[in-house]
Amino acid sequence: MKIGRQDRRFSAISTSNADTILVRGRDLCEELIGTVTFTDHLWLLVAGTLPTAAQRRVLDATLVAIAEHGLVPSVQASRMTLAAAPEALQGAVAAGILGCGSVILGSAEAAGRLFDDVLARSSSSSLESAADAVLREYVSARRAIPGYGHPLHRGYDPRSRRLFEIAAEAGLAGRHIETSQVIERLLPNVTGKRLALNVSGAIPAVLLDAGFPLLALKGVPLLARVASLIAHLLEEQTRPIGFVLSHAGAAAIDYDGEQPDGFVRSDQ
Amino acid sequence: MKIGRQDRRFSAISTSNADTILVRGRDLCEELIGTVTFTDHLWLLVAGTLPTAAQRRVLDATLVAIAEHGLVPSVQASRMTLAAAPEALQGAVAAGILGCGSVILGSAEAAGRLFDDVLARSSSSSLESAADAVLREYVSARRAIPGYGHPLHRGYDPRSRRLFEIAAEAGLAGRHIETSQVIERLLPNVTGKRLALNVSGAIPAVLLDAGFPLLALKGVPLLARVASLIAHLLEEQTRPIGFVLSHAGAAAIDYDGEQPDGFVRSDQ
Amino acid sequence: MKIGRQDRRFSAISTSNADTILVRGRDLCEELIGTVTFTDHLWLLVAGTLPTAAQRRVLDATLVAIAEHGLVPSVQASRMTLAAAPEALQGAVAAGILGCGSVILGSAEAAGRLFDDVLARSSSSSLESAADAVLREYVSARRAIPGYGHPLHRGYDPRSRRLFEIAAEAGLAGRHIETSQVIERLLPNVTGKRLALNVSGAIPAVLLDAGFPLLALKGVPLLARVASLIAHLLEEQTRPIGFVLSHAGAAAIDYDGEQPDGFVRSDQ
Amino acid sequence: MKIGRQDRRFSAISTSNADTILVRGRDLCEELIGTVTFTDHLWLLVAGTLPTAAQRRVLDATLVAIAEHGLVPSVQASRMTLAAAPEALQGAVAAGILGCGSVILGSAEAAGRLFDDVLARSSSSSLESAADAVLREYVSARRAIPGYGHPLHRGYDPRSRRLFEIAAEAGLAGRHIETSQVIERLLPNVTGKRLALNVSGAIPAVLLDAGFPLLALKGVPLLARVASLIAHLLEEQTRPIGFVLSHAGAAAIDYDGEQPDGFVRSDQ
Repeated sequence: MKIGRQDRRFSAISTSNADTILVRGRDLCEELIGTVTFTDHLWLLVAGTLPTAAQRRVLDATLVAIAEHGLVPSVQASRMTLAAAPEALQGAVAAGILGCGSVILGSAEAAGRLFDDVLARSSSSSLESAADAVLREYVSARRAIPGYGHPLHRGYDPRSRRLFEIAAEAGLAGRHIETSQVIERLLPNVTGKRLALNVSGAIPAVLLDAGFPLLALKGVPLLARVASLIAHLLEEQTRPIGFVLSHAGAAAIDYDGEQPDGFVRSDQ
Repeated sequence: MKIGRQDRRFSAISTSNADTILVRGRDLCEELIGTVTFTDHLWLLVAGTLPTAAQRRVLDATLVAIAEHGLVPSVQASRMTLAAAPEALQGAVAAGILGCGSVILGSAEAAGRLFDDVLARSSSSSLESAADAVLREYVSARRAIPGYGHPLHRGYDPRSRRLFEIAAEAGLAGRHIETSQVIERLLPNVTGKRLALNVSGAIPAVLLDAGFPLLALKGVPLLARVASLIAHLLEEQTRPIGFVLSHAGAAAIDYDGEQPDGFVRSDQ
Repeated sequence: MKIGRQDRRFSAISTSNADTILVRGRDLCEELIGTVTFTDHLWLLVAGTLPTAAQRRVLDATLVAIAEHGLVPSVQASRMTLAAAPEALQGAVAAGILGCGSVILGSAEAAGRLFDDVLARSSSSSLESAADAVLREYVSARRAIPGYGHPLHRGYDPRSRRLFEIAAEAGLAGRHIETSQVIERLLPNVTGKRLALNVSGAIPAVLLDAGFPLLALKGVPLLARVASLIAHLLEEQTRPIGFVLSHAGAAAIDYDGEQPDGFVRSDQ
Repeated sequence: MKIGRQDRRFSAISTSNADTILVRGRDLCEELIGTVTFTDHLWLLVAGTLPTAAQRRVLDATLVAIAEHGLVPSVQASRMTLAAAPEALQGAVAAGILGCGSVILGSAEAAGRLFDDVLARSSSSSLESAADAVLREYVSARRAIPGYGHPLHRGYDPRSRRLFEIAAEAGLAGRHIETSQVIERLLPNVTGKRLALNVSGAIPAVLLDAGFPLLALKGVPLLARVASLIAHLLEEQTRPIGFVLSHAGAAAIDYDGEQPDGFVRSDQ
């Protein structure tokens, strides 16, 4: 059966024959392998052109910033999965990636849309009043403000500060960064609490200023997290803790359902 | 319940407090963001030390080589998944990754083990006779020889050739590459057919010669493929073909099960 | 680090000791295995009590209705994944499940919420006017109406009709079914086109009338689809078509990116 | 590109037109919905025929036996995933399924193959000596014996005992069950330790005796676990513990990598 109205049947990313593989129109073996970095290649794949040195530096900085932060939930899910299914590393990586959702990591794209909305509206008013209006709409619709606040880094997120320095050094700091800062300043007034810009808010700010496509933003934390997962899964193969994690998790939860009189639980 | 005997409860990858995030002992914000490339960071995460310029160049080359090759099965699975579940980009990436298994992409690690086995045995004999012995064991156990042959690039895989050039230029060509070439030469004799070293064979050869850990090999094609998936999923959001792919797939398959007389199928 | 405010640390589903496993307060071995059907067990797991015979019959009917519909996208993604990664059946099942999203299968929960919204509002007005008001809100917010329309079964979905018969026979047809029918009647007026209630609309209607929890609705098509995937993956192991599907998919798409003069694509 | 030699382009599971959906040759709406149970439907999908009452009872018993056992690793991975990505229930189910691998749950198929191997060899010798020979081969190849031993149920697994009672009551106890018992008796001699048949060993024994296909065995624990996951994910939506689990997991692990003098970790 034919689902939906998909009338265009084209892809512009890659084609090949027995001798040559083209990626975004470039000969993979002659022009790319050995010549460009993986970060250049990511930019080429998503944007269709190679980045400038400044763009590459900003993209590298965001990927490095978001890759690793210890035994976060996605890493634990991934390590437990490898412990239970060691035959499929790809399954453990997939399990880790599935936790890069709207609450954790995935907020980069939502924050990027927020900044874009404010900027679109600021053409007819000041950035401040546009931001104020958009934030009040979020609050009245009870939507969370994406990109602000962190359970550990409360005063400020050191990664955000560093990313803004890099963007400035690279000459690519622009209106999205400015917008993210205006929002940080307005938040206490509008929401009643002070929340610092977190790394998932700083990443879209610097990447959109650098010209990275909005619809690929969510891919940046995903790709970075895969690098972290590969390291954790290597460690899991040599120093396994997957079942230690699940044992500790189960022991932290009490059973409060029905049970016969005198039943003694022993599964902790 | 406690599963298995996991007595060591340690991780050496990252720790943090409110001001500082350490990755492999280095201050993420002071020493890594803005200073190292994403490829450096991957090497640091898995190997515990930063790579040399030569090592970084080889790792970059492998990641660029394996990232993209058109509408391969994992890309199609990923695009169909996004078409059906556009609310979860991470799910579409995960679906694509799950197809990086033993038949496609995942053979990098298996090939790496093959080269290691041959080298381990060559201490007491020549590389040729060690390779010949190992290959004959594979054949008699009916195991496929991982890392050789490609449905499109039959004569030679242009990516393998280019990766070997990079390794030589970087001064990192060594015994694993040599082993992979010895095996390629012996294959027609041992198996009766000529099969060229493919990119999944060349990647472990150059990476093991460069000092990359064997247990992280499978992560290289996985990470590279995620970069490709991000580009395809960006394209899927703007020029969708996910359901065109599934429509064409379904139309290629005939139903040969039971059916009532006169039943006319219309779901193509 | 502590994410979020999760202060209650309880689960009421299962506990155990060396001799006894309790599920929802019942002794698994003494009271459930061999006594209840898998469908009973699903109801017990999600609702905390065993279903009546009428409730079981409705739940069985929905699971049977939605399990299988040929080579749909999720089945194709799953079969391609097994072809590429035969070592991990669980990975192929996961890839199939990831395509049960908001566009396909996952609309059951969205439709259930639509019916609930209409019913909540109908306390102060007639069902018709409540439905009309809710539909107009969906249209003005450009939200799709979940549960209506099907690419193959345009006039009516035979599965919906049959599910409503079962609900009536079981004595469990109620206000949610009525609501779904009122909406079907109003749709041509409100949206300008006639769309029949599809199986993803009929399932929440009959299940909510039967007392099944709204928050478990999405699980019904997911569970049913897994049964279908197991059958397709068994067939894939004995009569593989995974790469036939991907070959046909790739051949249906043209490359329209940059290419050197005279380049001839051969990867179809 | 064309991968592999897949020359047959057929599927025998389902076909349809606008009025009729056929599943294994039966009219879904006329013959199946409302008439058969979900367990019947699973058997029909994988085996091509409807089960007898005895076969259905055995399959129901196995699905009920393996569905739920508290906060096992796959359930924890799934609940953490939903906490981080609440927009995609299917992603959380997929993360849970990915942990049904060779170490946990997935051993059902491996145990089934073990029983089949022993039976195949017993045609020319007694069951005892065939089992003894196969076990010794496993031991000398350092392969784990699948289907025996459990971290909590050490003396015996109460689910295995109950499944064998059901099989006997249903008149379907046969040579696979006998084989599993012979192996249990031989194990202390061959391996030096006593290990009771666990539920992942009992399931293939009773299902193969009942005529269920070997290549669909792994699907039984997968399907059953999905029912459990739906219940846990419903609970996670109303009484979230996903981040409590990950917090407890992280706190159980110490960091033993490099760190500057005086560094105080605070991420527990």
